[in-house]
Amino acid sequence: MKTSLVALAALSLAAPFSASPALAQEAPDRLSAVADEALASDTAAWDFVEGITTEVGPRQAGTEAEQRGRDWAVTWLRANGFRNVADEPYQMQTWVPGSNATARVTAPYAQDLMIVPLGNSASTGEAGIEAEVVYFPSYADLAAAPEGSLTGKIAFISHDMRPTQDGSGYGFAGPVRWTGAGLAASKGAVATVIRSIGTETERTPHTGGTSFPDGVKPTPAGALSNPDADNLERMFARADGKPITMKLVLTPRVIGETTSGNVVGEIVGRDPSLPPVLLACHLDSWWNGTGAFDDGAGCGIVAAAALNVAKAGQPLRTIRVLFAGAEEVGLFGSTAYSEAHIDEPIAVGIESDFGADRIWRIDSNFTASNPDLYGKLARAVARFGVAPSREIATGGADINIVRDQGGALIDLQQDGSRYFDLHHTNNDTLDKIDPAQLRQNVAVYTQVAGILANTREPFKPAE
Amino acid sequence: MKTSLVALAALSLAAPFSASPALAQEAPDRLSAVADEALASDTAAWDFVEGITTEVGPRQAGTEAEQRGRDWAVTWLRANGFRNVADEPYQMQTWVPGSNATARVTAPYAQDLMIVPLGNSASTGEAGIEAEVVYFPSYADLAAAPEGSLTGKIAFISHDMRPTQDGSGYGFAGPVRWTGAGLAASKGAVATVIRSIGTETERTPHTGGTSFPDGVKPTPAGALSNPDADNLERMFARADGKPITMKLVLTPRVIGETTSGNVVGEIVGRDPSLPPVLLACHLDSWWNGTGAFDDGAGCGIVAAAALNVAKAGQPLRTIRVLFAGAEEVGLFGSTAYSEAHIDEPIAVGIESDFGADRIWRIDSNFTASNPDLYGKLARAVARFGVAPSREIATGGADINIVRDQGGALIDLQQDGSRYFDLHHTNNDTLDKIDPAQLRQNVAVYTQVAGILANTREPFKPAE
Repeated sequence: MKTSLVALAALSLAAPFSASPALAQEAPDRLSAVADEALASDTAAWDFVEGITTEVGPRQAGTEAEQRGRDWAVTWLRANGFRNVADEPYQMQTWVPGSNATARVTAPYAQDLMIVPLGNSASTGEAGIEAEVVYFPSYADLAAAPEGSLTGKIAFISHDMRPTQDGSGYGFAGPVRWTGAGLAASKGAVATVIRSIGTETERTPHTGGTSFPDGVKPTPAGALSNPDADNLERMFARADGKPITMKLVLTPRVIGETTSGNVVGEIVGRDPSLPPVLLACHLDSWWNGTGAFDDGAGCGIVAAAALNVAKAGQPLRTIRVLFAGAEEVGLFGSTAYSEAHIDEPIAVGIESDFGADRIWRIDSNFTASNPDLYGKLARAVARFGVAPSREIATGGADINIVRDQGGALIDLQQDGSRYFDLHHTNNDTLDKIDPAQLRQNVAVYTQVAGILANTREPFKPAE
Repeated sequence: MKTSLVALAALSLAAPFSASPALAQEAPDRLSAVADEALASDTAAWDFVEGITTEVGPRQAGTEAEQRGRDWAVTWLRANGFRNVADEPYQMQTWVPGSNATARVTAPYAQDLMIVPLGNSASTGEAGIEAEVVYFPSYADLAAAPEGSLTGKIAFISHDMRPTQDGSGYGFAGPVRWTGAGLAASKGAVATVIRSIGTETERTPHTGGTSFPDGVKPTPAGALSNPDADNLERMFARADGKPITMKLVLTPRVIGETTSGNVVGEIVGRDPSLPPVLLACHLDSWWNGTGAFDDGAGCGIVAAAALNVAKAGQPLRTIRVLFAGAEEVGLFGSTAYSEAHIDEPIAVGIESDFGADRIWRIDSNFTASNPDLYGKLARAVARFGVAPSREIATGGADINIVRDQGGALIDLQQDGSRYFDLHHTNNDTLDKIDPAQLRQNVAVYTQVAGILANTREPFKPAE
């Protein structure tokens, strides 16, 4: 930790920043004043996330609830003065979680454990399945299990995830969820239960998508809450080799092709011939929470920022907000948006999809190639506690279009220390949002989007 | 807060303590050494609560799960050297929660809210009931509603509970749960949903018993989690007078008379003719948690303390542990124990049933009448951070027998600051127990029970 801080401190004194005008030499401007106002008193982001979580709630991709979310968002954008508001539909194969999810240890220590199905899980049928559980302390232990060794068994994969500010713990523990069930199925498992990919000790299992490799038939797959995974591990310690059996009931199903959509709206710029600034988020959520932290907050932040930029005067470039659909279940909205608009250049893409805690770092993919612009942005947000970096931005999940176009990307990194306490759980509710930190996000987005929308030159020189 | 601390500090310098020998004059003894060892390294309490939550889990009163809990406890007590271990049966009318509990707002803002049934709730039937919701911000608002004004409606009672160290917030907010549904039913409500009697913002509704007055037919009654109650309140704010309707499915039922029981065990004293020291807890739990904080920890604490006293040499008096049954649903075990043993005098009763956080105060009901003994106890536990007080102990729920006999009572007050974060929720799991604070409880109980069990004189002089 200390090492990183020292490295960042050194970085902030080095190129590309030292080549640019010093902070004190830049006079206050209308945009900065608006961003400062946002920090103190923005209400638009809160109004959005409070409204959609209250009036719509969960917005599972491809369902009527997601449709109600889009309708609500369209109404909100129009009411708040956005132009060219549209719900751009696409078709998708839709998975729904079903209404029952139970996991009961049947022997030797009968008790219920709390579980949720993972996205793309198959169904056990209402009657459920009962089988012996095989315990793998980690993904590597499962990987080392011989082919066929899980035939007829339920695999239980645990892991050791810890909170990280930058979210890197997800990369470490995530494979257990992303591919663990498929790997277990390939070795014969009839079902898989994992320890939640989550960093808290609440009785709130974390869902999320899993996938099965080609040629491997999907099996039922669910996540136990961390306290339940602890309990199951203790059962293995106490059973001393006696078999542990579990009855699992998970009833997800694929309901076939349904309509989803991307909602867009614009603050139209003075020169609409210039490629727009794209601010993205996603509107869908898993069914179990209310989609507050993930990602109602993100939509509220980017929409509020666009409105704030307009308060400082009509920007040169158009600012477009993209509230993508069906992100959680496989980026269907992001893919559809890129396919539909690939020939319409985007100037720069930024996405907010990591909760509502404060932004602490600004990354771009033009830091080296356009140091003046990066330095200007970094200096402008320093007063909000946002540090510069040399990390190369890769962009959020919903801005495939910008990656597909090879365009400019910025990542405004949020503090993820508690993100995986809430991620994909029923605990993703409005009360988890700190209004002061939400406003800091709005202020930073306002500042960054405002500078970009008022810059005529291309952001990312050809390489 | 400051006022209270000052008052306590003044108290600690005043009578009855100043009349007793000063702390420094009391030489270390074997009992104190054993208590100190318990603080550093007791494992028995953890072994008990870890074991029963892992191998049995939830222990709903009157069910086969509670029976498994008794069997497990009997085995544990015998294995750990207790004598006269017994499971003393009694019959009770048994309520069970049923398997489905859902609350869905159907209009104008359709979404599911998380709910659990309250103990003694009636069933809606599997088909559920749908009705308009009437919002009462507090119990007083419900009390002010005219007779008959809730006919055909679902009452929603909220409140404003905050954490308190001494648990007094339960007395403030508790009536909403204890009698709110009965009061609403008496005014015509077809069902009641309350904001959970809990102090956290997790998506974990708090169950607990409710009761209906004579002549009022029980209705379905459930508790929403705090975030869901927040959401429902926001819906009322946004609906601006439009009716809010809810579909409620709660399927508890009374399964008739079943057998429950009290488990007892003894460390037999040198003079079994002297009335014993009774250390109590309860073995049952609500179905949704695992009965760790409430009250597996309490049973582990008192059992470990009894074992520790024996390590310091056979005590003069017998120490009896009472693991009461069916406390949560109406003190059936406490009542049965008193009825069965009312003619067998108890020297003193102490119960642990407020989680596993540190003990911070010692109260008795003989502080004024037997200041020497109270002062000796208070001085002996001061090194564990336990303060004296002038509060009059009333004893835990499971020691009715001592109250019925007019006997001596001690309350070793635990820090309840986070108790109502977990109380009666599915989050009542082993991981919530801090092993260091658990050991502090064992140390204090060891010290107090050891002094009492080695004192020949009666504790509470006739008044």
